[in-house]
This record gives sequence, structure tokens and C-alpha cells, in this order.
Amino acid sequence: MARNITPREKDYSQWYLDVINAAELADYAPVRGCMVIRPLGYALWEAIQRELDREFKDLGHQNAYFPLFIPESFLRKEAEHVEGFAPECAVVTHGGGEALEEPLVVRPTSETVIGHMYAQWIHSWRDLPVLINQWVNVVRWEKRTRLFLRTSEFLWQEGHTAHETDAEAQDETLRILDVYRRFAEEVLAVPVLAGQKTESERFPGAVRTYCIEGMMQDGKALQMGTSHHLGQNFARAFNIRFEGRDRTLQHAWTTSWGVSTRLIGALVMAHSDDEGLVLPPRVAPTLVAVVPIFRNEDEKATVLEFVRRLLVQVVGEAEVAASERRFGHDRVQQCFYDPVTRQTVVVDRRDTLRPGEKFFYWEQRGVPLQVEVGPRDCAAGTVVLKSRLHRTKETLPLAAVTREALDGRLQAIQGEMFRRALEFREAHTHPVSSYEDLRRFFEQDRGFLKAHFRPSREVEARIKEETKATVRAILEDTGPGRCLVTGEPADHEVVFAIAY
Amino acid sequence: MARNITPREKDYSQWYLDVINAAELADYAPVRGCMVIRPLGYALWEAIQRELDREFKDLGHQNAYFPLFIPESFLRKEAEHVEGFAPECAVVTHGGGEALEEPLVVRPTSETVIGHMYAQWIHSWRDLPVLINQWVNVVRWEKRTRLFLRTSEFLWQEGHTAHETDAEAQDETLRILDVYRRFAEEVLAVPVLAGQKTESERFPGAVRTYCIEGMMQDGKALQMGTSHHLGQNFARAFNIRFEGRDRTLQHAWTTSWGVSTRLIGALVMAHSDDEGLVLPPRVAPTLVAVVPIFRNEDEKATVLEFVRRLLVQVVGEAEVAASERRFGHDRVQQCFYDPVTRQTVVVDRRDTLRPGEKFFYWEQRGVPLQVEVGPRDCAAGTVVLKSRLHRTKETLPLAAVTREALDGRLQAIQGEMFRRALEFREAHTHPVSSYEDLRRFFEQDRGFLKAHFRPSREVEARIKEETKATVRAILEDTGPGRCLVTGEPADHEVVFAIAY
Repeated sequence: MARNITPREKDYSQWYLDVINAAELADYAPVRGCMVIRPLGYALWEAIQRELDREFKDLGHQNAYFPLFIPESFLRKEAEHVEGFAPECAVVTHGGGEALEEPLVVRPTSETVIGHMYAQWIHSWRDLPVLINQWVNVVRWEKRTRLFLRTSEFLWQEGHTAHETDAEAQDETLRILDVYRRFAEEVLAVPVLAGQKTESERFPGAVRTYCIEGMMQDGKALQMGTSHHLGQNFARAFNIRFEGRDRTLQHAWTTSWGVSTRLIGALVMAHSDDEGLVLPPRVAPTLVAVVPIFRNEDEKATVLEFVRRLLVQVVGEAEVAASERRFGHDRVQQCFYDPVTRQTVVVDRRDTLRPGEKFFYWEQRGVPLQVEVGPRDCAAGTVVLKSRLHRTKETLPLAAVTREALDGRLQAIQGEMFRRALEFREAHTHPVSSYEDLRRFFEQDRGFLKAHFRPSREVEARIKEETKATVRAILEDTGPGRCLVTGEPADHEVVFAIAY
Repeated sequence: MARNITPREKDYSQWYLDVINAAELADYAPVRGCMVIRPLGYALWEAIQRELDREFKDLGHQNAYFPLFIPESFLRKEAEHVEGFAPECAVVTHGGGEALEEPLVVRPTSETVIGHMYAQWIHSWRDLPVLINQWVNVVRWEKRTRLFLRTSEFLWQEGHTAHETDAEAQDETLRILDVYRRFAEEVLAVPVLAGQKTESERFPGAVRTYCIEGMMQDGKALQMGTSHHLGQNFARAFNIRFEGRDRTLQHAWTTSWGVSTRLIGALVMAHSDDEGLVLPPRVAPTLVAVVPIFRNEDEKATVLEFVRRLLVQVVGEAEVAASERRFGHDRVQQCFYDPVTRQTVVVDRRDTLRPGEKFFYWEQRGVPLQVEVGPRDCAAGTVVLKSRLHRTKETLPLAAVTREALDGRLQAIQGEMFRRALEFREAHTHPVSSYEDLRRFFEQDRGFLKAHFRPSREVEARIKEETKATVRAILEDTGPGRCLVTGEPADHEVVFAIAY
């Protein structure tokens, strides 16, 4: 097979693009900076949606849809917000063949238009809390783009909630941060630091911004989700007021929070290897790929009969029969491994590819387990089970390939992927005791550096200028100390890193 | 309770808006012609997505995402297509603070940009068929808008497939038409006619357009979905070519097909009554609303204990316990009736509303079944079960309110809603034997008129001008006859109606 993936050691950026390309996750679109998310990439987004959407709804949130277009004047109602977003906006000036009276901005985020609607829906404390989320596309014009990590259009979810009190809004902000943290670690198998942003990294218009930050295999940080306490800033700008329990008119307290298709980039960069994509079982659209090996029609009949027994053992006769009705016998047969998540076991029956090409195909697409079945396996009553993560093979008797056996291996793989990523992060996280050490570290290395630091726009700008590193998160569970740079008292440690 | 819904008889258009407003399905957005889909409206869209997405995937389709922005030049590559869509486009002229070199159109539909990508992905007959769908927002600038039925931005799915042969593309076009027909009838409980459009109603760039058409309660037609055989038109315009089995280079045959949030408008207009929304159980986000009635804390404890027994009987102890962990005891408690569809049984525990207000609340939101439980019911061991559709009450012993009993009633309601809509359509469908009769009919009445007709752009334009009616569908299962207007030979009957 032609080597189509540049090794990480040689060129990490090229490796990232090669993995995406080999797995057919995404392509650049004909419009500069935009992407096409191909079926496997989109299936990962559907898995992310499925898991997070359930979490949000279990916490009482509902989905809704707010408009793509926002009057330009709305952005200007919150001073920091317009300053942050106006330079990145795409602007519609014509509609239906005529110039518009007021230009419309394509939403870069929806606090403003949602604030406008909340002001009409919220009248009394009885209407609170309002807990709404939307899954939508947004546009932020980018000069330098990279598939999934930074594109002019991307998909995301944005939650927007309104509350009676400051404390309730703060609770919501942290509750969602914890949903994100658990999701990143338990589902995506990416360990993350959860903490507050410094003022200079805060969302434009927020009182406090919290984030989760993961470490990629090149030691750089990736912001994987943010949760903002907006205080009463947007409530004031959009007049979201309610009659309180004490009959006084009060401004609501709002939050917003989001994760995006960037998470797919995180998945790729945290787990994949020089052979291509490696997917955690919790989000892998296909869990097991069965490759039957045969050289003639007789062998084909024998092998497929054997494979059918294997399938029945794993997913049951009814599902196998249903999959045969759905897809016929000639191409890639898809059985549902799990009826709720609709993750599949596939049998690659294509006769346009050789077995080696099929192994390569499913390997580059990150399928956690492969099963090979050839005529000799049938005769011996065995199969060969391969793990994508471990790159190992084991020969098992057919009877041993039960649902429980596969579940156990998939869970083990999920756990192992998290442990490996955690070990990598721990190995690339260091305390640092002077700014000079920090500067020298980032000259040649990447990783997380921990130190006490007293947040300051000015000092952070200088550090970024000199080292490219930024404060990724304030670690609020650490105690006080002396600032690395100024020696002044500092409440907490922070993590410095060079970020995507 | 204040009467907040205009009766259908008095003003059908106002009734429609009042029902949407009372059920809080949607609102107009601050941008002219755009809408905000509120949580209940969006939950209906999620139900539609859930059901259709499964059908598409069971037929081997995959989801993907193509970009929002399309270079203006792409539209011009297919002559009919640009003529049809250019007048409706929203145009982005500025991005990132600068004027763009080439203006970008916000997608009104995605044949062009998808055709561009398919040309890069398809090389050989082995790459075919390509079966891709996307769930996205689209924009078509509209002068006269109506919530869900016609808005400048709406949500839809658009399937785009490429095939080796004309026949396979035709099969796909009709297979999807049948998916739409079954979905409309079995899930939305709206009977539809499925047929081909005449040339003048065809999708710009298509060879043949098929549609499903429903009848609303005012006798007007609503186009509820379309499926297009695009021939090789877009393949030629975008150079989608493949090496065939015979080694020659050939253009692919493509199809496209879509349904939109307009279906929510169809649901409202086909089934609702003067009291508000009536939802078919297959798409109702909440299937049963339990309203506990109490005047003091003692009664509350007794009634809620009784309600809990009811819940356990219907959804099981584990789900009731989970719902208590999720929501606490003070507001609207949500138990999942079905773990796959996540449709709910709710207990309206709010103490900010009186029982009568709660009945009204769930009634206007179209919940199929209500259960009332008061202290006297508890004493007698009974509950009162109300059907939204039938507007009847029955008193049942608690033991009779089993999962099976509720399932049976919900299925009966689903069937009854379809039958009622079908009877209404049959009562408002008539044969017509002369154009004069047709003209006179539409002067004062609405409905479907059937007649033999020989499609002709010119004649159809005249009929529309004189009567506002159009040919909604050619009924291809009818035999030949003489054209109603010209007396010339006509292959099939057609249906005329005034449409939304």
C-alpha cells in the first residue's frame, strides 16, 4: 500500500492533514477558509451531538433555533462584544436582488439575537430559568485556517440561559463546564484541565469565562469548550428584565457556553498515529470491521456463512436479518451493534478491493476492532481479532467472540486511550519557577508549564509576544503564592502553553 | 381562561398564527421574514429528523455537511438553476472587514457546491452510488412570509445522490418519494397525493420533479416534499464524470430531494382545532401530561404519592427514580415514555399555576393524553383520562392505566387522526369536467379538482392567472383521456388546487 501519511516526527501539521485526508473526514470547500465535512467526519459530529445533547436535556435544557442573520445594530449594543466580533463578521448587504436598508451579520455567536428574544419571553421570576441550546452553523472570518481547528464556518452548539440570581447563573456556568470536562475525558478520552480564563482571554461581554483545555500530541494546547457567566451585561444591553419575588423589576443573569466541530480536530490530534485515525469506541461510528478473505466462490460461500454465525452471536439473528434486508449481499453490510447509538459492525463484502486494501481502509478510518476470517479460520473454527490501538492480533475460537468479549475489549480500549493521553500530558507538564525558564522552555519545547501568576493584560501580552505562550487556565483549586513574573502575591497557579 | 385563539371559521390565517402563538411553537425574528423556532416547535423538528434520518440511513445514505456560502459563479453554471434561484438569494459582499473579490451567495439549495465536490470524489463506477444527505439551514429571500410555511430562512434536509445509470437515479428519486409519502401518512398522519410536477412547476435544473401534496383544513394544497431526477444536467455543469464498467468516461446521473420545517406548518394546519394544537402521537414530544390537583400540603403528598404509583406502572421504577434525580420535585417532572424516541410523560408539579391553567397549557400544546388526579380520585383509586383529539374524559381504575392501555389509545389516536384527515380530503376532492366548472369552483371554494389535462406552460399560466389554481401533481396511475381545457389527448389525470 502506498504510504500516504507523513509521520508525526517529520511534520506534525502535515501528518494532521494527511490523517484527515486518508480517513476522508473533511475537505477544503471552494470558498476560502470553509470546509466540507465528509460522512465519517460528520458521523463523529453526530456521535458528539448524541452524547452531549442527552446530557443537556437531562439537565433540563431544550433545543431551539434562532436566526442566522443578526442586524448589525444588535452587535453594537454590547460594547466589548462588538469590539471582539465585528472584525470577524461576514456581512450580507443584498437580498432578493435589492440592497438592504440595514446590513445583516451572519451570526458569529448568538447572544445578541437571543437576548432580544429573551427580553420578549421573560416577564416574571416564574418564567425563569430559561435553559435553551441550539445546534447551528456560525461564521467567523479567518485569515489562517486549518480543518476543524479554525475555519471561517463551523458547526457548534451554543447554550444560552437566563436566571433569577447571580449565584444560579454561576452554578449553571460551572455545571456545564463539568459536563464538558466529563464528556472530553469519558467520551473523547482526552484529559482536560478545567479552569477560568484570565481577563485578556475572556469572551467579549462575559464577566467570567471558564474553559477546558486539552494537550495535543505535539504538546500544544487546544481549547475544547468554553462556559461564560455573562453577569447582567447582555440583560442590560437587551433589556431582559423580570418582576422578582419581591415585585421589583430586575435584570436577568445570563450564561452562554459552547463546543464546536473543533472537537473532531482534538480527537484526531490527541489519539491518531502514523498509520492514521484512532477512534475511542464511545464515538466510533463503526466498532468492528469484519474482513472476509476468499479467492473463489466456494471459499466466499464458506467464509460468509461463518461470518454470519459470528454476526448472529454478536448482534442476534433479528438484527442480522434486518441488515441483510437493508443492504443486500454485495457491498458493505452494516449491522447495528447498539440500537440506541446506532454504532455498527460492518462486513466488508466488496469485491472491488483486495483483503489487504480493506484492512488498510478500515485501519485508516480508526475502527477500534478488525476481524479477519479466511478459509483456514473457518476450517479451524477461529477468527483473527486485531486492535487498532494496540496494533496486535489474537486468534480466538469463534465461540469466544461474544458480545461480552467485544464489549470488554472496547471498554478496555476506551480506558487505555484515556490513560495514554493522560500519561502523555503528565510527561509534558512541568512546574516552572522563573520567567526566564519559561521563555527558554518555549524556545524549543512544547507542553504545559505551571506556575503562580498574577493575571494582567500587560504582562500576558508581553509573554505572548516573547514566547507565543498564553495563560490557558487559572487552576482555581490551587493555593496562593508569588507571581512568576512580578513576584507579587498571586491567588492561584496557572497553566502556560502555546495554543492552537 | 381568556380565549386566545380565533376560530377557524372566522379567520383561518389568524387561527393558524394564534395556534402557533398559543403553543409557543415559533416567533418572528427581528430580521424581516426570518423566524425563531421555539422549544416545542424545535422538538417537532427533532421528531421529524429522528424518523426520516433513520429511514435515509436504513437505505444506505450518510449525512455530511457542505458549506453555507456558494461562489456566485457556481449558480451560473446551470442555466435554469440560476434563473430560478438568483432572484431569491441573500448575498455576502464583505468578510473580515474587507470587500470580497467574488460575492458569496447564502445557499438557497446546494446542488452546485455539492456537484463541485462530487466531481473531485467520483472517478470510477466503483465510487458509485454516492448517497449523501445534509440537515441544514437555507435562505431564500421572500417578500410575503408566514411562519413555517414560507420564511426567508428555514431548516431542511437535502439529499444529493449520484448514480451510474439513468435508471438507478430514477429508482432513487421514486424510492425517496415513497419514503416521504409513508412518512407524511404514517408519522404525521397527513394523507398525501404523490405524483410528478408539470414542466412549469419543476425544480430549476431538474429533468423530472416528484412531490407529495397534502390538503389543509381550508382546502388549500401544501407541497410537503419534493424529489428530483436531475438527469446529467448538474453532472455536465460541474463535470461529475466517472470511468464506466466499459472503460469509457461518462457523466453521472444525479438526484436531489428535500423536506423542510414547512412540515411543522402542515402538522398544525392539518390537525389542530379551535382549542389549539393537536399532535399525532408519533411526533408528540410529550405523550401524556399528568396534572395533580391539590389544595394543601396534605393533599399534595397524597396525590403525588398516587401519581408516582401511576408513573411506576407505566414507565417502571428505574425511570421514575431517574426522572426524580434529573428534575427534583418542584417543577415539571419528565419521565421518558420511550427510551429511544425520548418522548415523555410529564407531571406538572408547578405551584405557580392553578389546575385549570395547567389543563389549558397542555391542551394548547397538543399533548395527546391528559391524566387528572385529585384527592377524590386517590380515595377512589381512579384517574381521569382525557383525549386531546376526542375531547372526551373517562374515569379508569389506576390498575387499568397500564403501558399497554396507553399504547393502545395512542395508536388509536394516530389512526383516527389520519382517517379524519383522509375523510376531509375525500370530501373536498371532486372530478371536474370542464374548465368553466373549474373556474367557478375556485371562485368560492377550495379543494382538489381532478381532471385529464395536457400539461402546457401557456395553459397553466392562464389557469393560474384566472383562478389562482395550479396543477399540484400528475397522477401517473391514471389512464389516458381528453384534456379539460383543450380537448387534446392527455396521458393522465392531474389535481388542481390553490396552494400555499
